[in-house]
Amino acid sequence: MDILLNAANAALLVAHDIRRDVEVGLVLLGPPSPPRFVRLQGFRLQSYQPDIRSNAALVRRALVEPSRVERASSPGVLGSITTFTEALDRFGPTFVHLTESGKDIRDAALPADATFVLSDNQDLTADEQAALRERGALAVAVGPISLHTDHAIAIVHNELDRRHA
Amino acid sequence: MDILLNAANAALLVAHDIRRDVEVGLVLLGPPSPPRFVRLQGFRLQSYQPDIRSNAALVRRALVEPSRVERASSPGVLGSITTFTEALDRFGPTFVHLTESGKDIRDAALPADATFVLSDNQDLTADEQAALRERGALAVAVGPISLHTDHAIAIVHNELDRRHA
Repeated sequence: MDILLNAANAALLVAHDIRRDVEVGLVLLGPPSPPRFVRLQGFRLQSYQPDIRSNAALVRRALVEPSRVERASSPGVLGSITTFTEALDRFGPTFVHLTESGKDIRDAALPADATFVLSDNQDLTADEQAALRERGALAVAVGPISLHTDHAIAIVHNELDRRHA
Repeated sequence: MDILLNAANAALLVAHDIRRDVEVGLVLLGPPSPPRFVRLQGFRLQSYQPDIRSNAALVRRALVEPSRVERASSPGVLGSITTFTEALDRFGPTFVHLTESGKDIRDAALPADATFVLSDNQDLTADEQAALRERGALAVAVGPISLHTDHAIAIVHNELDRRHA
């Protein structure tokens, strides 16, 4: 869970604020009851702090009494039973797959309003990678060394911040 | 403490390993008994994990029975009573101060074997900044937006990784 919460922080937080234009989707495929999906909407979040202990509570509340229909457990936090490919289709319209074998992000023509897809400490499965390819995902690498998910996200944001500055 | 531990993780960790060529110095200036200094040596660390709860225990052990002389509380973890400027002088020889008003890191001639100095969610004091200037520190910015310390460190590493790739 810490990997996901650190990744969400890297995606959502700047020094003293939340990135209101970011939406985060956490796909939980481990036991006890996969697939579970938690969506964090930057423009709606109210009580989101850097402290991952309180964020763990926020995410856990979104996992209670799951249904196929997304339901808000607190402002900007939605939980549901959703597969990886269904989660992709709730985002979109364009996808960027962060992977060591991708094109260097500094040289990549990043699509506008893209959804960036990263795995945790295990690579995406062959099926998950195929789902991304079917959706025309651009494969992009952040640098020459494999990093933790949250650090890779910080580098992606830095590249986007520079392009939009 | 979480800010420091997340920063240490960003400095020390890659996907499945520790950056053995990194040394981290945490300067603790808050209550109850400042100044305290904890040094984490990548080449000696044995039980360092991404989990900040266990790392908090590691750092807390280094704060027990403090003295002016550095003492190892576990392999690669040293604690002492040390001021900010003394901590600088245990590192060196060249310094880079990460600050929003600095030169863009992508255009900066970064010195070899440099010590990168970052603050937490509060800027360095005027005295601390003066200590860095006296040591010829290069002022460098990671991008157009103020970030959390750990995310700034991830971006610094990415720049260094690219130059050394």
